[in-house]
Amino acid sequence: MKAKVFVTLKQGVLDPQGKAIHHSVELLGHNNLAEIRQGKYFELDFADGVSADDARATAEKIGNDVLANPVIEDYTVEVS
Amino acid sequence: MKAKVFVTLKQGVLDPQGKAIHHSVELLGHNNLAEIRQGKYFELDFADGVSADDARATAEKIGNDVLANPVIEDYTVEVS
Repeated sequence: MKAKVFVTLKQGVLDPQGKAIHHSVELLGHNNLAEIRQGKYFELDFADGVSADDARATAEKIGNDVLANPVIEDYTVEVS
Repeated sequence: MKAKVFVTLKQGVLDPQGKAIHHSVELLGHNNLAEIRQGKYFELDFADGVSADDARATAEKIGNDVLANPVIEDYTVEVS
């Protein structure tokens, strides 16, 4: 059982790193972009025998407590 | 049109940051994980009127040239 956790800055929080990437990419000639935002991505690989529900619950808890800062960041969990 | 780019370390490349997160998470009492790997995540927001094919082509090019280091990292593009 695997879970993917995506952490992104909340709407309205400034993302200077994303802006810098957008600028670099424009200098390389890609002018069809409106915005680039940077986030974080984590792959959680669960031990054998862990159910999908347990995996989701653990991933949500870890996302909220460790991986994301809930003040400025949102997180999404996908279990597969 | 939006594209998501996920950048992950290639299989076999050491991920000390992921190992550190795994260790912290175990100290918090989550003992049902085999491994955590850290990656990067980017949201590319394209200008109006860009087609899905163009968005995918641009995102693949940016992923390869700017966002990932193809020597040690893999990247995946999802267009939506």
